[in-house]
Amino acid sequence: MFERIALIGLGLIGSSLSHVMRRKGLARHIAGHAKTARTRDKAVELGLVDSIHATAAEAVAGADLVILCVPVGVNAAVAAEIGPHIAPGAIVTDVGSVKAAVIRDVAPHLAKGVHFVPGHPVAGTEHSGPESGFAELFENRWCILTPPAGTDPRAVARLTAFWEACGSHVEIMDAAHHDMVLAITSHIPHLIAYNIVATAEHLETVTQSEVIKFAAGGFRDFTRIAASDPVMWRDVFLNNKEAVLEMLARFTEDLTALQRAIRYGDDKALVDLFTRTREIRRGIIEAGQETPAPDFGRLGGKAPDGAEPL
Amino acid sequence: MFERIALIGLGLIGSSLSHVMRRKGLARHIAGHAKTARTRDKAVELGLVDSIHATAAEAVAGADLVILCVPVGVNAAVAAEIGPHIAPGAIVTDVGSVKAAVIRDVAPHLAKGVHFVPGHPVAGTEHSGPESGFAELFENRWCILTPPAGTDPRAVARLTAFWEACGSHVEIMDAAHHDMVLAITSHIPHLIAYNIVATAEHLETVTQSEVIKFAAGGFRDFTRIAASDPVMWRDVFLNNKEAVLEMLARFTEDLTALQRAIRYGDDKALVDLFTRTREIRRGIIEAGQETPAPDFGRLGGKAPDGAEPL
Repeated sequence: MFERIALIGLGLIGSSLSHVMRRKGLARHIAGHAKTARTRDKAVELGLVDSIHATAAEAVAGADLVILCVPVGVNAAVAAEIGPHIAPGAIVTDVGSVKAAVIRDVAPHLAKGVHFVPGHPVAGTEHSGPESGFAELFENRWCILTPPAGTDPRAVARLTAFWEACGSHVEIMDAAHHDMVLAITSHIPHLIAYNIVATAEHLETVTQSEVIKFAAGGFRDFTRIAASDPVMWRDVFLNNKEAVLEMLARFTEDLTALQRAIRYGDDKALVDLFTRTREIRRGIIEAGQETPAPDFGRLGGKAPDGAEPL
Repeated sequence: MFERIALIGLGLIGSSLSHVMRRKGLARHIAGHAKTARTRDKAVELGLVDSIHATAAEAVAGADLVILCVPVGVNAAVAAEIGPHIAPGAIVTDVGSVKAAVIRDVAPHLAKGVHFVPGHPVAGTEHSGPESGFAELFENRWCILTPPAGTDPRAVARLTAFWEACGSHVEIMDAAHHDMVLAITSHIPHLIAYNIVATAEHLETVTQSEVIKFAAGGFRDFTRIAASDPVMWRDVFLNNKEAVLEMLARFTEDLTALQRAIRYGDDKALVDLFTRTREIRRGIIEAGQETPAPDFGRLGGKAPDGAEPL
């Protein structure tokens, strides 16, 4: 599908892309770059790349597809470095969780004949690093592309075909809308997960060992996403500030209303809300974005035989 | 271990108790009661009980252990009904997620020779109903007992042995402390999970279908616990009001600080927080309360071979 694909960054997403590209034969040659020698060595050891490069500029030379798989805060510097070395006609894309900031940071560094099609595979685990990737990560997940106005539709079509070959569904949307959708479906969930772990850490009446022991009551679920990569997430929040603050204001407003319902014992409001949320869960399961198997934190989340789904 | 155990309520916890009691031979006879005929029929069909009773009063007659497995808001009425029918020397316990309110509601209805030892198995799934139970639910989970001052230590020891036979570790603590610990490890996580689902529902700029499609970005994890039983959770919040409001105030305070860090671009504060939260996750995994396998919402959360743990 492509002659030479350059992966800039070889963490969870970069390494997973390598696995699926190998399995589906999407690149004749995979050129890789990672910032640290440790990751570069590991990538070679794991067979993730056909050639490894100490600089991003070297990695992109001659590539017909360049995929930036770095924390979004690094994009500007990487784009400045690779811009002059990208072959005319090549497609440049990324996998960042914010899109308006990526366009702002990357587009100015690319030459006229280079096609920039920003992308975001909505897939991941709480793990990071070159060892954490696997070929199935993108299967049945959505990849959002946010091509700026005037992007060559053929480049968008090629990248769409690439992600579909990786097992994903592709949706095209405006970068600003993407940032709003992801603020509520991903950024705020991570933020409040990080936050409750912090709140638990500060308590003087409840010990950390008690929090850990009794985590099965619900807290556990939050620590999973609060174990995600710290630098990646710092960059997401700082680069999607407006949408995050807007969604956070709404979240806090709703939480205040809920707090008030508890304080004044408004039982009807509570049951109504708690019943409606089940519907959305069902929608997510029906859409194939979650399994209905009960998760109780053991056996990798698999329930023993006999436990029936929702 | 017991001659006759009465299960009042046959939902997730009641039915799971039946399965594990059968497997481990903990009761010669299991007497069951459920409010609805549908649940009673289902319990008989599933073999959960040796005798089924249309009233709780009938179910407890002659039992040497009575376990209340109903939403905590129902305890007062149930205790008033069964109080006069409980055999002297019997142990009465419950499985509610709040403990001070349960003591307030149940203790006054019990005769002098009856031993009341409130309990809370910190275990569950997002499912409910008599079909959702399974014998392994309590395995390697903590069960907290909160005997009021003056409780016969032999009754506490017998109930401890019972829960250990079910596979649990037992911790004894004060009811007020329990309610504080669970407010942060269970009640607030559920509350904010319910809340973010509500926030997502209200948005006019992001559609419900978009929220569902892109739930894999983190939102999905919250919908799991927000799919828990609405009536059970209403009762938890209304019966642990003070601790929940106290923890919620701290959560909101921390969230405001985090919001401020984002607004003013305090990148160091963000990375520091996001790094510390990983430690607590590791503690929970080391304590056996969670699996290290990455969860990406498929295969029942099981990662394919090759994906390495954190």
